[in-house]
Amino acid sequence: MRNIEVCVSPELIHLYDTKGKNVVIVDIFRATSTMMAALANGVASITPIMDLESCRAMSPSGYVIAGERNGLTAEGFELGNSPLAYLDNAYAGKKIAMTTTNGTLAIEKTKTDANRILLGAFVNLKATARYLKDQNQDILILCAGWKGKFNLEDSLYAGALVSNLHLHFQTDCDSAIALKSLYESNSHRLQIFLGQASHAKRLQNHNIEADIDFCLTQDKYDIVGLLSGEELIAFEMSGK
Amino acid sequence: MRNIEVCVSPELIHLYDTKGKNVVIVDIFRATSTMMAALANGVASITPIMDLESCRAMSPSGYVIAGERNGLTAEGFELGNSPLAYLDNAYAGKKIAMTTTNGTLAIEKTKTDANRILLGAFVNLKATARYLKDQNQDILILCAGWKGKFNLEDSLYAGALVSNLHLHFQTDCDSAIALKSLYESNSHRLQIFLGQASHAKRLQNHNIEADIDFCLTQDKYDIVGLLSGEELIAFEMSGK
Repeated sequence: MRNIEVCVSPELIHLYDTKGKNVVIVDIFRATSTMMAALANGVASITPIMDLESCRAMSPSGYVIAGERNGLTAEGFELGNSPLAYLDNAYAGKKIAMTTTNGTLAIEKTKTDANRILLGAFVNLKATARYLKDQNQDILILCAGWKGKFNLEDSLYAGALVSNLHLHFQTDCDSAIALKSLYESNSHRLQIFLGQASHAKRLQNHNIEADIDFCLTQDKYDIVGLLSGEELIAFEMSGK
Repeated sequence: MRNIEVCVSPELIHLYDTKGKNVVIVDIFRATSTMMAALANGVASITPIMDLESCRAMSPSGYVIAGERNGLTAEGFELGNSPLAYLDNAYAGKKIAMTTTNGTLAIEKTKTDANRILLGAFVNLKATARYLKDQNQDILILCAGWKGKFNLEDSLYAGALVSNLHLHFQTDCDSAIALKSLYESNSHRLQIFLGQASHAKRLQNHNIEADIDFCLTQDKYDIVGLLSGEELIAFEMSGK
């Protein structure tokens, strides 16, 4: 039987073997949720970029650049980090360059060895679970965390994905066992429980409750987000 | 209000400020449980030692040496790592030198800055909670983990301690929030839940179910284990 594991912080990734695995990168507030919103609304691709300057440099090559600092759209950037900006196919067909520190770091640390890198988000939880179930690979869920620490929203998503896959994958990974239980005992009140999270509180201070609500909505989209070369692209699940 | 945090692995300890805090080191299977059994059964002190050789070298100075490799008492050692060996005051009055890789590492990483270092174990959970409640310091619970990874038994103890102290301490630490919930939703079936843990499975392979049962028994002892200089000693809670 295939195996599923969870790494709760990019700072622990060296303890895991990523070779040949399908790696799911999770950064619920808001990088991976925003990326899924963008892909579901027709953007051609998303190139994740570590810092603002490198992202800005991609603008002359025709990329729409997305980035934020301290809760505000960065100077000279067309988009911030809100998933809502991509709705109604607002950027359909465009190539996006997006800064995301934690998410990009997580991708950089795993992309050499992994079989595939996927985006983990509540908005397409079941589609990702279905995709992974149909593959032959072991799974490693990598939580982007917050400045290296364990974070509640990414951990709950990891638990939700393990919960959705536990009939098809075995685990001897303690964080997978713990987070599955954590998700299952709080799934009926996810929003309230996550209201305690340190990162949600920081986001609330920026008046982006609508973003938080969006990021915690389950299964809005039936597509998967995959890394292809340096770009994140959509894989349609319909017809499966 | 004072603050409580949980660090789920010694490999993440650099992300936490330990200065002036009461740090609770947790290594349920079996280092901190065995240490509490020893202290409750009258040993004079326990000196934690990283490796077998350094521990063996303390024998000529009058220490009883305790150490294990691959589930067996190490060659030339009087004791293994089982808490049961210390019952009935079998080593009362003796000074013990004990090897414990994960636990010693956790102590070494925090002892410079911490206000106090305590031993965390289910066998004296409420005594430790009461001691910490009566102090003025913030708390950091440091799980020794397993080879750097998140581990289930240490995390559940951390959640149990947060649960016992949550009326007296606030937290904006996501791992504290998550593990409190994990403990509270599994406290009625701790043994069954922990039966899934990777480390418990490894221990079961060594036929030490009796040790596991002991380590998961709550509140056998009403003393606290504290680091004093290089030695761990007992602090009696009775009369408080």
